Amino acid sequence: MRSSRAKAQLAHEITADEIRQAVDVAAGRRPATLLLRDGRLLNVFDGRIRRVSVAFAGRLIATVGSDDDAPAADTTIDLHGAYLAPGLIDGHVHIESSLVTPAAYAEGVVPRGVTGVVCDPHEIANVAGVPGVQWLLERSRGLPLDVWVTVPSSVPSTAMETAGSALGLAEIGALLEHPQVVGVAEMMSFPAVVAGDAVELGKVVLAEAARKTAEGHAPGLSGRALQAYLASGIGSDHESTTLEEGREKLAAGVFLMVREGSVTRDLDALLPLVRVEHTDRIGFVTDDRLPHDLLDEGGVDCLVRRAVQAGADPVYAVRCASYNVARHYGLKRRGAVAPGYLADVVVIDDLAGFRAQAVYKGGRRVAVDGRYEPDGSLGDGHAASAPGADAWNAAVRDTVRLPRLEVADLRLPDPGGPVRVIRARPNQILTGALELLPTVREGAVVADPARDLLKLVCVERHGRNGGWALGLVTGFGLQHGALASTVGHDHHNLMAVGADDEAMLMAARRLQELGGGFVAVGRGRVLAELPLEIAGLVTDAPLAEVRRHMRALDDAAASLGATLPAPFMALSFLGLPVIPELRLTDLGLVDVLAGRIVPLAAGG
Amino acid sequence: MRSSRAKAQLAHEITADEIRQAVDVAAGRRPATLLLRDGRLLNVFDGRIRRVSVAFAGRLIATVGSDDDAPAADTTIDLHGAYLAPGLIDGHVHIESSLVTPAAYAEGVVPRGVTGVVCDPHEIANVAGVPGVQWLLERSRGLPLDVWVTVPSSVPSTAMETAGSALGLAEIGALLEHPQVVGVAEMMSFPAVVAGDAVELGKVVLAEAARKTAEGHAPGLSGRALQAYLASGIGSDHESTTLEEGREKLAAGVFLMVREGSVTRDLDALLPLVRVEHTDRIGFVTDDRLPHDLLDEGGVDCLVRRAVQAGADPVYAVRCASYNVARHYGLKRRGAVAPGYLADVVVIDDLAGFRAQAVYKGGRRVAVDGRYEPDGSLGDGHAASAPGADAWNAAVRDTVRLPRLEVADLRLPDPGGPVRVIRARPNQILTGALELLPTVREGAVVADPARDLLKLVCVERHGRNGGWALGLVTGFGLQHGALASTVGHDHHNLMAVGADDEAMLMAARRLQELGGGFVAVGRGRVLAELPLEIAGLVTDAPLAEVRRHMRALDDAAASLGATLPAPFMALSFLGLPVIPELRLTDLGLVDVLAGRIVPLAAGG
Repeated sequence: MRSSRAKAQLAHEITADEIRQAVDVAAGRRPATLLLRDGRLLNVFDGRIRRVSVAFAGRLIATVGSDDDAPAADTTIDLHGAYLAPGLIDGHVHIESSLVTPAAYAEGVVPRGVTGVVCDPHEIANVAGVPGVQWLLERSRGLPLDVWVTVPSSVPSTAMETAGSALGLAEIGALLEHPQVVGVAEMMSFPAVVAGDAVELGKVVLAEAARKTAEGHAPGLSGRALQAYLASGIGSDHESTTLEEGREKLAAGVFLMVREGSVTRDLDALLPLVRVEHTDRIGFVTDDRLPHDLLDEGGVDCLVRRAVQAGADPVYAVRCASYNVARHYGLKRRGAVAPGYLADVVVIDDLAGFRAQAVYKGGRRVAVDGRYEPDGSLGDGHAASAPGADAWNAAVRDTVRLPRLEVADLRLPDPGGPVRVIRARPNQILTGALELLPTVREGAVVADPARDLLKLVCVERHGRNGGWALGLVTGFGLQHGALASTVGHDHHNLMAVGADDEAMLMAARRLQELGGGFVAVGRGRVLAELPLEIAGLVTDAPLAEVRRHMRALDDAAASLGATLPAPFMALSFLGLPVIPELRLTDLGLVDVLAGRIVPLAAGG
Repeated sequence: MRSSRAKAQLAHEITADEIRQAVDVAAGRRPATLLLRDGRLLNVFDGRIRRVSVAFAGRLIATVGSDDDAPAADTTIDLHGAYLAPGLIDGHVHIESSLVTPAAYAEGVVPRGVTGVVCDPHEIANVAGVPGVQWLLERSRGLPLDVWVTVPSSVPSTAMETAGSALGLAEIGALLEHPQVVGVAEMMSFPAVVAGDAVELGKVVLAEAARKTAEGHAPGLSGRALQAYLASGIGSDHESTTLEEGREKLAAGVFLMVREGSVTRDLDALLPLVRVEHTDRIGFVTDDRLPHDLLDEGGVDCLVRRAVQAGADPVYAVRCASYNVARHYGLKRRGAVAPGYLADVVVIDDLAGFRAQAVYKGGRRVAVDGRYEPDGSLGDGHAASAPGADAWNAAVRDTVRLPRLEVADLRLPDPGGPVRVIRARPNQILTGALELLPTVREGAVVADPARDLLKLVCVERHGRNGGWALGLVTGFGLQHGALASTVGHDHHNLMAVGADDEAMLMAARRLQELGGGFVAVGRGRVLAELPLEIAGLVTDAPLAEVRRHMRALDDAAASLGATLPAPFMALSFLGLPVIPELRLTDLGLVDVLAGRIVPLAAGG
């Protein structure tokens, strides 16, 4: 890891020469590389907006002052009074949720004024472990987007699933040494933390020893349980969904991350907390953004826009998505437009729209009027030449290793009497648990589309034990065919739902050929598909192409009778054994509240 | 340095066991070690004051909640509605200016609610170099006061003086590795920074590489020069004396340290900036506090008290002297009363008076009603058993190594014509420069008390070259005798001022015997003295004893005719070659604005 670390330092840290250049420009001994004249700066330090010129010296900002006092410059651009803000920084995001690489993600958000993200590569770590995290770090190099990493803290999420890999204390400790790593990611096992579990607390100690942060995830936690969670030293949370919850956490010392994701949208509820009296204690995050939301609404810029439109102070809203996040993670020279800071600057037409006229990253213009135009000298996020990169690339390729399945393997013997059925709900991650008498044919429980009872299978796909488990689900509405996915939170085993077993098998086999992705099968053929050839989670294709495929998949699912609005996302969450109520992993049905594997037969 | 570093980590870092204990208390699995019931908390996170119980688990705070929901506790104390605040942290102080050791300093400020200081051991470093800094670090261990250190950045201050030691980039880099070291101290050579000097910028780079801060010192700097200074990456300043200066620096990204020292008092001028809209960007510091001020007015608590009395929001005023400082330096678990934070808590009678009823450090009561009562288990700041401590103790002892001086050595040949005369000014560090025809006897310039013209000598006292230089000073008013000091900023050579040469010599010889300090000589004998046997700068005696001696010294000086209000402090600054206008070092008279050594003869 040593050589990759040294390289990352080169890319992220400022050199003595760069510093001297900035001082020289400010002192008038050499011209600025670029001067932005007549802008109106949103100053995160004093909360004011005032007219300024900003001079760049290479990657750094050399001066922020009046037009009269501006240094000479190689190039000058007149902003005619447009607003200037620091490049936005997303405080917590899972890039894999957008189904694309860091490079494609950057293409989506940089033109909107986002120049940094703190990501949690939790998904790829569940598939590919440390090499998966290394792959993400390497594929983020050279982008016009700073990608900082928090080390996934809960891989695997539970003992009731077979993930592709595990991150123990040793792996977490080693990754914390990487200079792009800023902390330990959301500590999702909050009951274990509250229970004083030594391994969970050990993760906080490791973060602290590395002088980095331990991030939180404590949905609904309150009172003494919340206090116990925070007593560990965990410093943030992004799971508040009500004003009351946000207020309590803020007062208890939480760095309160206000989230506006694709599924969970908390900004409206927490908006009353977005005020300058809460100083450096509020941050904006997206958590998870599906491709179409990223394209239509943007990344963390979406929170700034919506907060301002809802009446928040624009300078403070920008601060929540820049300086406050940088401060929380101890990111140096980031989050403000000021001398000595990185020249990560957004030029904005109007405050309410937060439309980026131009975006500068490290002193170079990388987007204009919404078009992504990264400088030719910047990399494309590919790490072909980095030492270790071959191994990391290999670790995220060909990750779909299914057992040989025949139709007979999907047979579900009738246990007699009522059985457990998962109930999928529209636009919710929460599932329900029903108990129904199944439809039985020849001694086996079968799918019965007329009753909206479908077969569900979760197949271990990491090549670790070749196991699978079967169950029933309602709520999808499929009348024919099957849907399958290698995105299956958080273990990311293959999930398939179907009205007939042959279609389910065909879908699974197609995913094996693709190396992962989403497939819709009907009428004996593949109707639509999205290859996610990297770890079975993301693709090298650009966002717009992903959106096209997703629309085709949703259309195909609808043609099969699907009634859920986002059936593939719903399918990907049916295996998540940490969110109530009933789930299916490769090890069986999970009663989440009871915290155990349960049989198909109700009451067992 | 390795073993001392490990020990310091033990003292400062929280262990996994301590964390588990706090979680256990919060979760109700074991009783709190102490419960403070019915307090009114000044909450730095949301700016509110509300009724709470605070439960300690050893050194940590386990819970902050309602009385109803408080955990069981071994001991409970009812606060009857008294206020609770985090222990205060002074953002920048030179402990040596109080003439005492860290232990005696702690005795002075801890009972007032100060539980941490970030110090700059600039004075002792000028005398004893790295071992001097190590001595201070070791002598701070085990105190009920956190003593963090910034590495002195300007030792020596200039090339126009002979200091006892020098700290180059190698020494600064090595000290930055110490866990109690939080940054590089005030970069006083601001003209060199603005000029792009490679060594000065190198110090900023070292701090950044260590992920620590580079502190500023930029009196009066404005416009492009200020921008150049900040472009280097320096992040703070405590030298603003006017509202306009403070506003400009705040907007430019400076962490604005508001100072109320013994000599320089800026709080009144900067008070309009002490408001929550300035969030985490304002800190309180004392910089230099003389013993009597420390006893009468306190340390950084003085700023909180005065700010509140002048109308500042009490919660925000406390925040400026706690959380904001902790945040600036990246101090973990410090600066707030919240679960997971160190149990450094002050119980206050009333907000305006900021009178500490009780002070808790790391969960133990260390002061009550102004009485210092450190727990017996705490150390006394002596490092007798620490590895390396013997060498560090030796380095700060017997530091007064004067050449053998005879009366003839103080003879000042008449250069003919007018000569340069330093003008000392009451209550100011700035001096004036006069040109006068001297009083001459037998070809030599002599003291002439009738004209208030006194002889001044600066004798190299570190045993490095045995040199000395002579000059004239006006403004002291002495009619007889002499005053001498081994505190002589920043080189700390021996400074003596006198109406007759024999008295000056006697004073110097007495200081040699004492190992340093202050002496007043008159009528052929020592009238008063304060031994400063540690580095010639500080004493092991307590503050009250130092104040008694200082009063005796001032009385003695007055009996000799001194008209300056604090003649020994004035004398100690006559050698400081970085503050205008005319100074005397061991190398000669310094014209500060010209930046060079000048002859006695005017115009030369």
